[in-house]
Amino acid sequence: MNWEAFPPRVHIQEVVTRDGLQIEPRFLPTADKIALIDALSQTGVSKIEVTSFVSPKAVPNLADAREVARAITRRPGVTYVALVPNLRGAQEALDAGMNELNLVLSVSETHNLANMRMTPAQSLAGFRAIVEAARGTQTTLNGSIATAFGCPFEGAQPEPKVLEMIENFLNIGLHSVTLADTTGMANPRQVAHLVAAVRRQFGALPLTLHFHNTRGMGLANVLAALDAGADRFDASLGGLGGCPFAPGATGNISTEDLVHMLDEMGVYSGVDLARLLERARALPSLIGHDIPGQVAKAGRSGDLHPAPTRLAAS
Amino acid sequence: MNWEAFPPRVHIQEVVTRDGLQIEPRFLPTADKIALIDALSQTGVSKIEVTSFVSPKAVPNLADAREVARAITRRPGVTYVALVPNLRGAQEALDAGMNELNLVLSVSETHNLANMRMTPAQSLAGFRAIVEAARGTQTTLNGSIATAFGCPFEGAQPEPKVLEMIENFLNIGLHSVTLADTTGMANPRQVAHLVAAVRRQFGALPLTLHFHNTRGMGLANVLAALDAGADRFDASLGGLGGCPFAPGATGNISTEDLVHMLDEMGVYSGVDLARLLERARALPSLIGHDIPGQVAKAGRSGDLHPAPTRLAAS
Repeated sequence: MNWEAFPPRVHIQEVVTRDGLQIEPRFLPTADKIALIDALSQTGVSKIEVTSFVSPKAVPNLADAREVARAITRRPGVTYVALVPNLRGAQEALDAGMNELNLVLSVSETHNLANMRMTPAQSLAGFRAIVEAARGTQTTLNGSIATAFGCPFEGAQPEPKVLEMIENFLNIGLHSVTLADTTGMANPRQVAHLVAAVRRQFGALPLTLHFHNTRGMGLANVLAALDAGADRFDASLGGLGGCPFAPGATGNISTEDLVHMLDEMGVYSGVDLARLLERARALPSLIGHDIPGQVAKAGRSGDLHPAPTRLAAS
Repeated sequence: MNWEAFPPRVHIQEVVTRDGLQIEPRFLPTADKIALIDALSQTGVSKIEVTSFVSPKAVPNLADAREVARAITRRPGVTYVALVPNLRGAQEALDAGMNELNLVLSVSETHNLANMRMTPAQSLAGFRAIVEAARGTQTTLNGSIATAFGCPFEGAQPEPKVLEMIENFLNIGLHSVTLADTTGMANPRQVAHLVAAVRRQFGALPLTLHFHNTRGMGLANVLAALDAGADRFDASLGGLGGCPFAPGATGNISTEDLVHMLDEMGVYSGVDLARLLERARALPSLIGHDIPGQVAKAGRSGDLHPAPTRLAAS
C-alpha cells in the first residue's frame, strides 16, 4: 500500500434517495425526500443522485421524481444527478434541469436482459439517442457499468469486456464512467486490478466506484481502489440500498462509515461527518427500521467515553 | 498494495466461544459449546480460543470453562487456547491441558484499571508469575495488548508505548503477541503503520491481529495488515462479540466473512468455508438472535442464481 500516493481529495457521491430508497418497503413522503436532499447538499458531498426518472410502475418509491427534482435547493458546487433508463426519462430529467444524467447498463447480457429487457448493445443504442437529446445543454452524461465486478447469474465478467464497454461509452460521447458492484461480489484484489487497468487505458477519465457491502468487503474495496488511484465513490447514507439476491444482507456502502474511514486515515473528502451522522441517525425514524451503517451507532473512533469513576488498583 | 508479497498462508484463529459468547445475553448450554468447538476443529482453523478461566461472577457465560476445556475433542494441528486473567485461572487452564494461555492487559492505564483493577505494570507482574507456573509444561503463552489501536477513555495510544509493551512481553518470556483493537477504533493506515513497526523491531515474532468491526472497517484493517505482512487473525464465527460502548454495533470481525474475502483474493488459509458457513447459519437458532456476519446471509460471491426464465429483448 502506498499511502503517500493516495489521492489528495476524494469525492463522495450520495445515492441514498435513489439507490437507497428504491427498494425500501415503504414510500418516503416527497417532502421528506426534499428535506433530506437539501440537508445532504450542506454536508460537502460532490454529487447527489437525486432520483430516477423511471416508470412509477417499475419503481413506485420514486414516482415523485419530477416534483423532487424541481423542489430541491440547488447548492452551487454540488452536481445533481438523475438516473434515467431511457430517452423519455432523459427528456424529463433534462426538463427538470438535472446537472447530470446517469445511464446504466449491465456488462452481463443476462443481467441486462433480466433488468432492462434489452441486450447491452440495445442499451448502448438507447444511450446514443440520449447523447443527441442532451447535445447543446449543460448537462453531463455518466455511464454506469452494472455487474462490472460480477453478475449474480453469469458470475465473473472478464476485464476486457468491461474495458471495451468503457471504450464504447466514450465513443458515443459519455463524459464519465461508474463501475458498479451491483450485487456486492467485488473483492479488493479484483478492484485494484480493474481500477489499475482503467487508469492505464483511459488515463484521467473521471471514474466512480460504486460498491455494496453485501459480503462485508465494502470498505476494504474502497481501500484497494484508493490505493489504485480511484478518487470518486458512490455511497448511501446509513448504508441503505440492498440486493434482491441477498435478503437480510447490507446494501450500499454507508456514506458516514466511508467518510469516517477517510477522516481517520487523513484522506480529505471535504465532507462534514458530524452533519452526515446527524442525518444518518434520523433515518430509522424516517424509514421505520434500523440502518446497516455502523458509525451512526458506535460513534466516531475519536468519541471518547468517561472513565468509570472509582479507578484504583486493588 | 503489493499483492504478490502477501503472506502465502494466513492463520485463522477462532474466538467465538470466548470473545463471542462472553457478552451474549444468555448462557449457551455447555453441550452446545462443546459441539460448536468440535465442529470448528474440523474447519481448518489454526487456533480456537475455547474459553476463559475467569471468575463465574465476572463472566457467568463462561462459568463452565473447566467442563468445556476437558470435554472437547482435541484435533491434532489445532492449538486450543484459554484466556486467563490471573495465576489462579492459569493454573486451572494448565490443569485442563490447554495448549496455550492468552494473557491480556491494556496498554491504556485507564482501560486496564477499569477492566482489571490493576495498572498495566501490576498486570505484567502477574504475567511473570504465570510464566513461572507454566515453566516445564508444553503450554505456550501469548500476550494480548488490548486497546493497542486506541482506548475508549484515553483515545489514541502512542506507537512507542505499544512497542515497549511487546518488548516487556518478550522480556518476561511470552512466546507470541496479539494486538487487539478492543473497541473497534483502528483504521487501515494506522494498522499498516503499527504492523510495519512491529515487523521492523521484532522480525519473525508470531503476531496476531484482533480486529472488531465496530465501525465497519474490520476487513479493510485486515487488508492493510496483510499488505504489511501480518498472517494471523482472530475472528469470531458470525461476527459475534461486541463492545459495551457501542450498543447495536457489530462485534469481532466475522470468521466466515474474513475467510470468504481471503478465498476471493486467492489468499490461502486452509479453512473450509462451506463448513464454517454451515455453523454460522446455525448460530441464530443457538443464540436466539440474528448475526452480524454477511456472507452467511448473502452467500459467497460465486454462489450464482438462476436467471429469470423469460429472457428476451423487447
